Amino acid sequence: MDLWYSEFHADTIKFSIQIEKQLLSKKSPFQQIDVFESKELGRFFTLDGFVMITEKDEFIYHDMIVHVPMHVNPEIKKVLVIGAGDGGTVRELCRYPHIEHIDMVEIDEMVVQVCEEYFPITASKLRDPRVHLYFEDGLKFVANKKNEYDLIIVDSTDPFGPGEGLFTRSFYQDCHAALNAKGILVNQHESPFYDHYRKNMQRAHKRIVETFEIAKVYQAFIPTYASGHWLFGFASKHFDPILDFKADAFAQLNLKTKYYNEDIHRASFALPNYVKDALAEGLKDE
Amino acid sequence: MDLWYSEFHADTIKFSIQIEKQLLSKKSPFQQIDVFESKELGRFFTLDGFVMITEKDEFIYHDMIVHVPMHVNPEIKKVLVIGAGDGGTVRELCRYPHIEHIDMVEIDEMVVQVCEEYFPITASKLRDPRVHLYFEDGLKFVANKKNEYDLIIVDSTDPFGPGEGLFTRSFYQDCHAALNAKGILVNQHESPFYDHYRKNMQRAHKRIVETFEIAKVYQAFIPTYASGHWLFGFASKHFDPILDFKADAFAQLNLKTKYYNEDIHRASFALPNYVKDALAEGLKDE
Repeated sequence: MDLWYSEFHADTIKFSIQIEKQLLSKKSPFQQIDVFESKELGRFFTLDGFVMITEKDEFIYHDMIVHVPMHVNPEIKKVLVIGAGDGGTVRELCRYPHIEHIDMVEIDEMVVQVCEEYFPITASKLRDPRVHLYFEDGLKFVANKKNEYDLIIVDSTDPFGPGEGLFTRSFYQDCHAALNAKGILVNQHESPFYDHYRKNMQRAHKRIVETFEIAKVYQAFIPTYASGHWLFGFASKHFDPILDFKADAFAQLNLKTKYYNEDIHRASFALPNYVKDALAEGLKDE
Repeated sequence: MDLWYSEFHADTIKFSIQIEKQLLSKKSPFQQIDVFESKELGRFFTLDGFVMITEKDEFIYHDMIVHVPMHVNPEIKKVLVIGAGDGGTVRELCRYPHIEHIDMVEIDEMVVQVCEEYFPITASKLRDPRVHLYFEDGLKFVANKKNEYDLIIVDSTDPFGPGEGLFTRSFYQDCHAALNAKGILVNQHESPFYDHYRKNMQRAHKRIVETFEIAKVYQAFIPTYASGHWLFGFASKHFDPILDFKADAFAQLNLKTKYYNEDIHRASFALPNYVKDALAEGLKDE
C-alpha cells in the first residue's frame, strides 16, 4: 500500500511520511486527532494535521523543554505544565526526585486518553502521585494563580486553534504573576526559517521580552518539525540560563539523556546571526 | 500549475518543494543536473535528484564549511577545495585577504557552467585570480600532492555516484599526505538522524579517526538537507577546533556572516548524546 501523510511546513514545502497503517482518527471537541504507524519514525500522532510527536524523535523536544530549565534552578519544587497532553514533558519532570508537585493543564482530555493508549512510554508518568491533571483551559487556570510556581512549561500547539491564546501578551503576564520571585517560564517558540513560523517566533519573543526581566531563546535539532530548527523560549524574573547554569547538579543527578548534555545546554543558546537578527527585528514591530 | 520536486530523505520520508518553473534539465558525463525556481527557497539545483544548494539556505552550509577551519588557523594561505562546483565555498574563502592560492578540483565542468549562469551570487568568486580551477578527478589530483596545503575542504555529494571515492580510507590518507604539518581537513559529513545517512556518517568518521591525529564532528541547522541536522568533519594533524579557536582573529577581520559567529563556532561541536553514541558505535564496525 502506498499511503502518505503530508504536512505543509510552508505554503510550498511539504514533508511526507509513508504510513504503514492509520491506527486512529477521531474528532475531539477541540481538534482532529490521528494516530499513524510508520517505518522510519515509528508511531506518531497529529492534531489538526500537524505532527505532535513521533516515537523516533520525541526525546529531543522533551529533553530540551525540561532539562534546560531544571538545570538552571535545582531548587524547583512546584511546576505548572500547560498543554503537553502526550505526557512526555511530565515524564522527564518526574525524573527529578526533588520536584514535589506538578499541575498539568491540558484542554483536551481526549489527547491524554489517546496517548495513554497509543504512546505508553511517552505517557508513562501521567499517573505519578505528584502529577495533578486538570482538563481545562490553561489560560483561565493560570490567571487564577499568584506567586505559586517555580517553573511553568508551555508545551503547546502552534498559535492557532486551541494553542492560540498561549501566545498572547495577557497570557505571558498571567504566567509572570503565577511564578514566584525566582520563577522560570519555558515555552515552545516556533521556528526561524520558514516565513510563517518566523513571524510566530518574532511575535512570541517580543511579547515575552516585554513581560519578563530575562528573556532568551534556545534551539534544538528536531527533524520532524518544520525546517528541523526548533526554538524554545527561556524567560525568568531572576535566572540567566547560562550564567546560572548548574552543571554540577547535572553530574550529581546522573540522569541518562539521549539528547541533552552539559555542552548542549550552553550551545543551544548560541543562535545563528540570521536568527538573532530576526528576533531583534521582531522587537521593532507593532 | 501544481508542479512538485520531491527528494527522499529516507525510503519512507519525502521532502517536496513546489516549483514555479524548471529552468534547466541537462545530463553531464557524470550526472543529471536540474535547476528550478521556487517561491519559498528561491532558485535551487539538484544533482541526480538531490538538492545541492538553494538560494535561501546555501549561506549556512558555506559559512560552516569555511569559517570554522579558517578561524582555527589564521595563517592559512594555500587551500585545496574538492567538489564545490557551485562556487559557494570559494566565495567564502575569497573573503580572507591572507589566502594566497586556492586549487579547486571539480570533476564536472558542467556544474560550474550551470552555476555561473544560474547562481551568479554563489559562483561570484570562481574567477578570482587566486582561484585555480581544475576539471578533473579530485581523487587523482590529491594523490599527487605532498605536504602542500594548509587546508583541504571536501565539499562533495553523498557517497555514491561521483562523490563515492571521496569517502574512502585511501582518499583520506592521500589528503593527510597532501596537507602540511599543520594541515586541516574539513568535509561534509552527512547526517545523524535517518538510518541511511547515519551509516554514511559512521563510516566516514571511522575512516577519518583512523587517519588523522585529531578528528572532531560539528553540526549546523540546514533546513533543506535530510533531517535538517547536517554534520561536518574537522580533522587535523595539529589543531583542535575548540582549544585552538582564534576568536580574536574573527573580530579583527570584521567579516559579516549570516550564520557563523563566535558562539556558533564553539556550539557547533556540542553534539547531542545520541549522535556521540552513534559515532562511537561506528568506530567499532568493521
